[in-house]
Amino acid sequence: MHKTLLALAILSAAAHADEGMWMPQQLPQVARELKAAGLKLDPATLTKLTEFPAGAIVSLGGCSASFVSPQGLVATNHHCVYASVAHNSTPQRNLLANGFLARNFAEELPAAPGSRIFVTQAVTDVSKQVITADVAKLAGKARSDAIENNSKAITAECEKDAGHRCTVSSFYGGLAYYLSKQLEIRDVRLVHAPPAGVGKFGGDTDNWMWPRHTGDYGFYRAYVSKDGKAADYSKDNVPYVPKHYLKLAREGVKEGDFIMALGYPGRTNRHRLPSEVAFTFDWSYPNFVKSAAENLATIAATTKDDKDAALKYAAQVASINNTYKNRQGMLNSYANSDMLARKTAEHEALKSWINADASRRKDYAADIERVEQLIAQRDSEIKRDYFLSSAKPRLLNTARTLYRLANESAKPDVERKLGYQVRDVPRIKAGVAALVRNYDEKVDKALVMNSLTKYAAQPAAERNAAFDAVVGIKDGMGRAELQAALDQLYAGSKLGDPAARDAWLDKKPRDFKASDDAFIQAAVALYDSDLKEEAAEEELGGKLQQAYANYMKAKIAYMNSKGRAVYPDANSTLRVTFGKIAGRDPGADGTTWKAFTTVAGVAAKATGEGEFNAPKAQLDAIKAKDFGKYVDPALKSVPVAYLATLDITGGNSGSAALNAKGEWIGLAFDGTLDSIISDWDFNQAMTRDIQVDLRYILWNMKHVDHADNLLKEMNAE
Amino acid sequence: MHKTLLALAILSAAAHADEGMWMPQQLPQVARELKAAGLKLDPATLTKLTEFPAGAIVSLGGCSASFVSPQGLVATNHHCVYASVAHNSTPQRNLLANGFLARNFAEELPAAPGSRIFVTQAVTDVSKQVITADVAKLAGKARSDAIENNSKAITAECEKDAGHRCTVSSFYGGLAYYLSKQLEIRDVRLVHAPPAGVGKFGGDTDNWMWPRHTGDYGFYRAYVSKDGKAADYSKDNVPYVPKHYLKLAREGVKEGDFIMALGYPGRTNRHRLPSEVAFTFDWSYPNFVKSAAENLATIAATTKDDKDAALKYAAQVASINNTYKNRQGMLNSYANSDMLARKTAEHEALKSWINADASRRKDYAADIERVEQLIAQRDSEIKRDYFLSSAKPRLLNTARTLYRLANESAKPDVERKLGYQVRDVPRIKAGVAALVRNYDEKVDKALVMNSLTKYAAQPAAERNAAFDAVVGIKDGMGRAELQAALDQLYAGSKLGDPAARDAWLDKKPRDFKASDDAFIQAAVALYDSDLKEEAAEEELGGKLQQAYANYMKAKIAYMNSKGRAVYPDANSTLRVTFGKIAGRDPGADGTTWKAFTTVAGVAAKATGEGEFNAPKAQLDAIKAKDFGKYVDPALKSVPVAYLATLDITGGNSGSAALNAKGEWIGLAFDGTLDSIISDWDFNQAMTRDIQVDLRYILWNMKHVDHADNLLKEMNAE
Repeated sequence: MHKTLLALAILSAAAHADEGMWMPQQLPQVARELKAAGLKLDPATLTKLTEFPAGAIVSLGGCSASFVSPQGLVATNHHCVYASVAHNSTPQRNLLANGFLARNFAEELPAAPGSRIFVTQAVTDVSKQVITADVAKLAGKARSDAIENNSKAITAECEKDAGHRCTVSSFYGGLAYYLSKQLEIRDVRLVHAPPAGVGKFGGDTDNWMWPRHTGDYGFYRAYVSKDGKAADYSKDNVPYVPKHYLKLAREGVKEGDFIMALGYPGRTNRHRLPSEVAFTFDWSYPNFVKSAAENLATIAATTKDDKDAALKYAAQVASINNTYKNRQGMLNSYANSDMLARKTAEHEALKSWINADASRRKDYAADIERVEQLIAQRDSEIKRDYFLSSAKPRLLNTARTLYRLANESAKPDVERKLGYQVRDVPRIKAGVAALVRNYDEKVDKALVMNSLTKYAAQPAAERNAAFDAVVGIKDGMGRAELQAALDQLYAGSKLGDPAARDAWLDKKPRDFKASDDAFIQAAVALYDSDLKEEAAEEELGGKLQQAYANYMKAKIAYMNSKGRAVYPDANSTLRVTFGKIAGRDPGADGTTWKAFTTVAGVAAKATGEGEFNAPKAQLDAIKAKDFGKYVDPALKSVPVAYLATLDITGGNSGSAALNAKGEWIGLAFDGTLDSIISDWDFNQAMTRDIQVDLRYILWNMKHVDHADNLLKEMNAE
Repeated sequence: MHKTLLALAILSAAAHADEGMWMPQQLPQVARELKAAGLKLDPATLTKLTEFPAGAIVSLGGCSASFVSPQGLVATNHHCVYASVAHNSTPQRNLLANGFLARNFAEELPAAPGSRIFVTQAVTDVSKQVITADVAKLAGKARSDAIENNSKAITAECEKDAGHRCTVSSFYGGLAYYLSKQLEIRDVRLVHAPPAGVGKFGGDTDNWMWPRHTGDYGFYRAYVSKDGKAADYSKDNVPYVPKHYLKLAREGVKEGDFIMALGYPGRTNRHRLPSEVAFTFDWSYPNFVKSAAENLATIAATTKDDKDAALKYAAQVASINNTYKNRQGMLNSYANSDMLARKTAEHEALKSWINADASRRKDYAADIERVEQLIAQRDSEIKRDYFLSSAKPRLLNTARTLYRLANESAKPDVERKLGYQVRDVPRIKAGVAALVRNYDEKVDKALVMNSLTKYAAQPAAERNAAFDAVVGIKDGMGRAELQAALDQLYAGSKLGDPAARDAWLDKKPRDFKASDDAFIQAAVALYDSDLKEEAAEEELGGKLQQAYANYMKAKIAYMNSKGRAVYPDANSTLRVTFGKIAGRDPGADGTTWKAFTTVAGVAAKATGEGEFNAPKAQLDAIKAKDFGKYVDPALKSVPVAYLATLDITGGNSGSAALNAKGEWIGLAFDGTLDSIISDWDFNQAMTRDIQVDLRYILWNMKHVDHADNLLKEMNAE
């Protein structure tokens, strides 16, 4: 929701074993806690990114995953391969409903366009190359530009090694920068996904809930060229041979066991300013929840009698539902907490500490005040542009991206805007290609209409004049007039045709200017205004980075003065979290949560339809107690999912859970609804994440789906 | 589902305190257990039906309830007043959604037609008057007729006391008969029901589930004539002054506390024959589940765009959903149990015991064999008539009832068929009048079509020739032809008009015969065939009663020989159950159940729509912790519902839960899904029933609905 130019990574106190998304290199700092928690490996081995086990951990960009065979087999969550299953689904061959299993390499299917597997090769501290002595003197847009240019230069140098993706990430609110170098595997194939009745069992009803019975697993395979390089899809490509892959635990887990997860958590906000907490929980999240509900209703209504459109929007619906429940859950937790009061008190304490000392006052006081003003400015701009952001037709945004790409492509690569460099072109092309699979005009138009009517109802001063001109919006327009204007806009464009879209990928700015296509014309018309807004954002961004980093510096000094260590907030870089497998008391109101669920619960929840449509073969196996070696001796059943005290967030989906010996024991896939607030406010007693038990994955693969080829490949037999 | 002429009440072993639906007069037999469980009253006081507390307990016919004020205020479940709320609801004044509160007597609304409050005055053993020495010699239909005639004579004698309803009930499978004499209060008024967002919170999703947050309470008031007699509704009537009413407990309850409930449980089947278990769980329940799902879908589809029709069927939908989940829950429990094997082994043990002794063999062996044959015959007839029973239009059934009534009315009252005596006429009239509120032709036709197509697809030999002739069914008719035949039938009748229906209530058989109304003609045409079937059923019923009673006699002797006491199965007569408030481990898979839920769980489940649409005022009160004196000190919140080990079943809904001093502490309203199987097979460790906590009722009445007038009347302040 927040339009921040810089990833604002913030500090957190880490007094307990279970709280903390540790950078691997920080683990020696908590070696004692790791040993005490039960780790049997040398903590030092966990710091080595290219050694076992970190060397087996990969990113899918938004999800985490792991190599689990010497032939590039990758295990992750069902919801992380969902888009690829949907991409290959048709009403005639509904892989979402029925599941998919490639019996051999030849049967594997291309993943959704743009699918990637990122294998981290190195992480380097580049703080002094990003914020050089010269940059440190700059302010506003000049500072933003310099940080961006330095980052681009570092990235470009790194990416001279073909087939790699390099990323400069901000840590501690812009106090530090690290460069990640990742092998970018572009030929990703879908190997196996269970039916939705397993992989999505419980659906949105059970999402973020315990007790949980979702078999949230799926498999990809990484392919590279014959000489081992990252390459586009080709029949001649061969499975990638990872340096390391996870070994399957031979023993099942039980309550109290040590557990750790390695993955790529996306974003946490544990030490935000009180004003940011208030804006998020009093304005941003409530508005998101409101519009998400409207969008879900709109998509449902417009795809009701159109199975094809429904399939196209299945992934988006899943995503909205997921975030919707997440945000609503956080809002509930927030409503029942003293979080804002506590954050405010903490912030006041920090200010008192600063003001108690002349030197500290000189170093930090002005920036603390300034960061508050800048945040207030940012918030008011977000509010103003709220409806506008969702009032733009999807193909207009595509046209804007294409036109920007054409303009940027006229410059030398290093001078191009971040996101429009040569390295970004495949991603942009994939996004355009994906429209075939995830765009439907009538759905898009209905979604846009919903926002547009609200946008147009705002006073002219709060609207965007360039956008108004493009659509033809005037004060006091009624719904019918807006609809007519929108219809005209859509009708005037040929971008609905895939071939027409593709053709624009290679055109020059003059071609755009000469076009009579309505969305292309609109993109050209909005261009100057878009750039102006971007410049204003960069001005604000530069100021914010400077003030926020100094605020963070003050906060770190303050925390250190109290003897407390800090780890950076999550920012989609590789992290390690550890804790133990544990139930919870209290669970949901009226219950205590046990650590494990079992297949008995699958049978109890199964209704034969909708979200609880467990496959008949599975129910038969449960009824016949056909558990094989996957039965848990204490539970006397096959465990499905288990709770643990791991500190994870979005992006950790698909993270391998490992035991004390570093063996694979399951996949993290969710947190419980009242744990999500931990993104902002970690609650040691209540936070639990949810793993699908490896024994359930293997049982289902062997006894229900008969994926013997994969079990053999993983040496599971 | 079972068409049995006689209520087959069966014995159960009662070794434990928590199992047992005791007849009040049996309580001295378990006085030691009652004291040990914590009862502070003298167990002897519980045996007196007209003393406190039993004197405060009433039946609503299908639900239980209690007087809770000296002015005839009656507390029961929301789902027990649901039909009356629906009856008074319109799309314009939706009491179901918004709730209802009469601020004074004048604002109270008439309950749904046919609503009754039955106040038990006396229960008498009439076994020897029903099965006299002469009757004992009879068999088959003659025996059925004699039992019916004796029962009617006893009833008629009893009902000479005007305003009373007398009922002869069979206990122990026809071994014993008791006469209940009840004051039948006919002027019943709706006083208060919370909004559906409280009273039905959680809807069908939470039904039979824990954790539970349903405020399942509502209030009626009993009215009588000024001279204190039962009377039809009149403005001049006055609130009934009960001899006893419940006092509210001043202290809240906690886990481990003694609890008892008094009410009218409907039916249990704890000691059925193995063949009856098999027929029920392998044929009857699965078929019910299938047709219930179809009927729900049909009602949903046909009322989708018709709010008026949807309201008319709301109570029926609630009832189908409730039974659907009940039966499916039992089927799940059955599938995971060894119940049939165990029942079979027990039955074999009984037979071995009988055959081990010549005298026992002579007394019982033949009847044991016979009862099996008779049950097999009954089962095959039920199977044959399965689709027919639901293939008859509702107005055709109304016409059949009216024609039967006209025929029976020609006889002296004591000779009329049970159910068509003078005493039954008001109930029949109320049923006819209720059609205005709960019948819609297009819904009925769709429901009938669904069954009719299946019925018509059966071979002619398995169909009913008289019914075929009436509808015009022939072998091999297609759907369109059946629909046309049905349309013609409906179109040919004026019974859809309320005035036309009412007119038939006072007509003579000759008027029916002369009518050209399609449903009336059909009723006349079916009459002889209906009577023939009835006679066959009575023949079977007489045989069954004789053999089954002797089988039960054998079983009681067998149980006594092992030193085990027995209580009769539930048969809608007043019973007492006692136990303790207790959570459960295991709860649902992956959880432990605590004994209490709280309003925090209401807020957590609330979605603002559908089944979880808690009222804003309630959510505000929860958020503000506006708990007043209803907060539980340990829970630090208002308790909503609690689990207990009480032995209840359908019919107990609305039963007052009392503490050790006999004070009111809540209302029983449900069991947990895996406890329902206890109707057939009581599981001491797993059976839990659910009460709504009196503190939640009072808190909601005071802090949300401001029902201060009722709180004052109940002396709750």
